[in-house]
Amino acid sequence: MVARSGEFELIARYFAPISRRSAASLALSDDAAIFSQRQNHETVVTCDALVADVHFRAEDSPEMIARKVLRVNLSDIAAMGAKPVGVVLAAGYNRDLPEDWIVAFAKAFGEDCADFDVGLFGGDTVSTPGPSFFSLTAFGEIPCGRALRRNAARPGDVVAVTGTLGDATLGLAVLQGRLDLHDAQHHDYLCNRYWLPQPRLDTGMTAASLARRVAAMDISDGLAGDIRKIATASNVGFVLQQNLIPLSDSAQAAINLDPVHWQSILAGGDDYELLLCGHAADIARLGPDVTVIGTVTDKPSEVLIVDHNGKMAELTKGGFDHFSM
Amino acid sequence: MVARSGEFELIARYFAPISRRSAASLALSDDAAIFSQRQNHETVVTCDALVADVHFRAEDSPEMIARKVLRVNLSDIAAMGAKPVGVVLAAGYNRDLPEDWIVAFAKAFGEDCADFDVGLFGGDTVSTPGPSFFSLTAFGEIPCGRALRRNAARPGDVVAVTGTLGDATLGLAVLQGRLDLHDAQHHDYLCNRYWLPQPRLDTGMTAASLARRVAAMDISDGLAGDIRKIATASNVGFVLQQNLIPLSDSAQAAINLDPVHWQSILAGGDDYELLLCGHAADIARLGPDVTVIGTVTDKPSEVLIVDHNGKMAELTKGGFDHFSM
Repeated sequence: MVARSGEFELIARYFAPISRRSAASLALSDDAAIFSQRQNHETVVTCDALVADVHFRAEDSPEMIARKVLRVNLSDIAAMGAKPVGVVLAAGYNRDLPEDWIVAFAKAFGEDCADFDVGLFGGDTVSTPGPSFFSLTAFGEIPCGRALRRNAARPGDVVAVTGTLGDATLGLAVLQGRLDLHDAQHHDYLCNRYWLPQPRLDTGMTAASLARRVAAMDISDGLAGDIRKIATASNVGFVLQQNLIPLSDSAQAAINLDPVHWQSILAGGDDYELLLCGHAADIARLGPDVTVIGTVTDKPSEVLIVDHNGKMAELTKGGFDHFSM
Repeated sequence: MVARSGEFELIARYFAPISRRSAASLALSDDAAIFSQRQNHETVVTCDALVADVHFRAEDSPEMIARKVLRVNLSDIAAMGAKPVGVVLAAGYNRDLPEDWIVAFAKAFGEDCADFDVGLFGGDTVSTPGPSFFSLTAFGEIPCGRALRRNAARPGDVVAVTGTLGDATLGLAVLQGRLDLHDAQHHDYLCNRYWLPQPRLDTGMTAASLARRVAAMDISDGLAGDIRKIATASNVGFVLQQNLIPLSDSAQAAINLDPVHWQSILAGGDDYELLLCGHAADIARLGPDVTVIGTVTDKPSEVLIVDHNGKMAELTKGGFDHFSM
């Protein structure tokens, strides 16, 4: 990898101790890392790039940003049903960031890697006159043929989600002063959901271990938009039940304040929950964190939602699109 | 992977046709790609991030930038002795770039992937208000235990390089108007060496296939700085012979104009030639592109160079540092 002015020292000081836990990294001291696949396993690989003030708020703490960079990628590994094993980080730090910021970022990144038991295989550290950016490539392992795909949904399946939806978008609204619930606990909860995604690795790995047909993806861009990607990949449609969509107490408080917040819950991104489709009996085996929210139909790309009044509407990428009849 | 506004369409239109050649990519339609390691092989993985006007000139053509992004990473794969198999590209396009630019970038990137027989496993496409950046993660395969490491040099070895040194730095000087050789052919040659690195994949794979002890790295930051990385990793020193350092006709023309250009040849980066250490007989088997330039000594981190007058000097990161005696 290209070592640029100052990079070598930064890597040695802050990232080498993180990478030393991983045999693959060659302690960041060679041109490339080397890793071996476990027998009868495949490697899944995913990549997400995050840019300051586009994908995260530049004023957020380096610790929160570091964890988010790691976790949004681990969420993709979870969506494949794989176990994360390592990451490669390309970090472009704005050249005016103080070294303290980079130290805090590296420390938090290392701690989160340790918490998720993933190695830092290598990377590149550069300086940029523009906004900071972080591009992470993450690796996971999965027994051959077991990966959860988007194209596995079939008519008659149920569709389900992990956790609760909409919290992250509502958290961002709180941070931006667009939502005030007059309740510090609700605010803390929602902001933390925005800052600190919880990749659903256990649910993904459990689904893959069933060795049954389960379709999965992670909801990064919002339920309304992302469900259409499964619809397209599987050539199916959906009927969702609004009253089944799982909400946190804090999101419910926002809804109670103004039902307009349903748009955030249906179309807001950044939750990093999993969307899963399969036989009802298989989905039921995924545990209490998984909630069925509707069914899979044989109407390609038709995504309908039955609202609280029993009225059917089309769920467009932006949210509700009530029929004009 | 996170699909952001407009990204999905861009990927579908320009990158999906590239990725379709690779089974691993899942045609960029899932959360992650899946790949399998060949039996008895390991995977090498490397990552380089390039930022406009830091690592390439923003005014360079999108075709040249695309190829450079790919090739600087393939050079790291070459330095490990591995065969490249695939790449993951995180592209952050400045938001004011016209779509034509992105089309040209994608087309050239795809063509170069095809030329080097590497698949596009996946990636992420984002928009940035700052300078464009490209972060590539590249994968190569190598028979288990055969990777060329930096720590394998031993006293008594010879040290050698592929190709010729200094051309890329002199090419950048031409582009920036700091060097004028009054010869269009020399200018074209040097500029192309700056724009279009030639990863030394054949030499690297040949060295690995010898199954002998060979240390290697690619020269991205200049001979003077990079040779110290092998010195540190292998705990050895070097004595180089200035008159053995291979020069192109164009670099020789620059030297003839002004010997000060030796600094570019010794300390300038971006050549992406390989630096190799091993038994003389093994290095000799790497073919006519490889030139011995000195010997490995048992003096840790002492890098000396014998100049054209037979005088010994220390080769510091910046180039010559003549002894004051």
